[in-house]
Amino acid sequence: MTYSTLETFNNPTEDEVYLGRHVLAEFFECDPNTLNSMDKVEKYMVDAALECGATIVQKCFHMFNPYGVSGVVIISESHLAIHTWPELGYAAVDLFTCGSKCDPKVAYEFLKNKFSSKRANFTELKRGIISKETMKVSERPFEIMEQIQS
Amino acid sequence: MTYSTLETFNNPTEDEVYLGRHVLAEFFECDPNTLNSMDKVEKYMVDAALECGATIVQKCFHMFNPYGVSGVVIISESHLAIHTWPELGYAAVDLFTCGSKCDPKVAYEFLKNKFSSKRANFTELKRGIISKETMKVSERPFEIMEQIQS
Repeated sequence: MTYSTLETFNNPTEDEVYLGRHVLAEFFECDPNTLNSMDKVEKYMVDAALECGATIVQKCFHMFNPYGVSGVVIISESHLAIHTWPELGYAAVDLFTCGSKCDPKVAYEFLKNKFSSKRANFTELKRGIISKETMKVSERPFEIMEQIQS
Repeated sequence: MTYSTLETFNNPTEDEVYLGRHVLAEFFECDPNTLNSMDKVEKYMVDAALECGATIVQKCFHMFNPYGVSGVVIISESHLAIHTWPELGYAAVDLFTCGSKCDPKVAYEFLKNKFSSKRANFTELKRGIISKETMKVSERPFEIMEQIQS
């Protein structure tokens, strides 16, 4: 098992590129009623995806008993995920986007506002740090026939 | 906008507890055919959830054209998410679990094996670091009537 220091996730070298940006957001002191409404949470997550320019592919949301909502919006550029603890006024949100078109921090600001979070913070990690050499290989797609046969 | 140092995500003080553990896994040099099969990716993600003792609530997976799979398994304990780049042999996987029942690292080892990843690493962040005082408040649930009326 290889545990990486967090620096590994954030410091591509000159010979490397990264595929995605992953914002891990912590929203504290939110409006509990918003966090416990599946309709509102789903709407705001979808709107957050659109606000940052993402293309929505699929979504699924679940309301827990007695309270709390979990949900994910899969976007062409990766995903947005949320878990809420209305009784604590807290929501854990992931905003993972690939490419330069979307800025996950736009979604962060949008949701912070919609959830009326009085105390919020985030960190951003780079995902898929790979060498520029490997990226060149991607210009020669692997054999499609091999996939079909496998 | 409050950007937090990564230490904020990993060092609860004596007066704090955390709600969840979030393993961010990077699987490199995987079998590209596995990563490009939605059926296999979905099966392994579901199996990974079960392997680490999670309760599956919902799932949604999407196959991209010409290749790549994105998917999420929502579990009672949070979620497992994946995005694959078969052409690069890379998969970004999130294993976010709450409570002490599930160990996300069990799912990490399981998937590393199933994807035949020759180079993998992960980092773990704590989500929802809150004061023990706030946790006490959760023993007094917020007004349900207020939710219904809102």
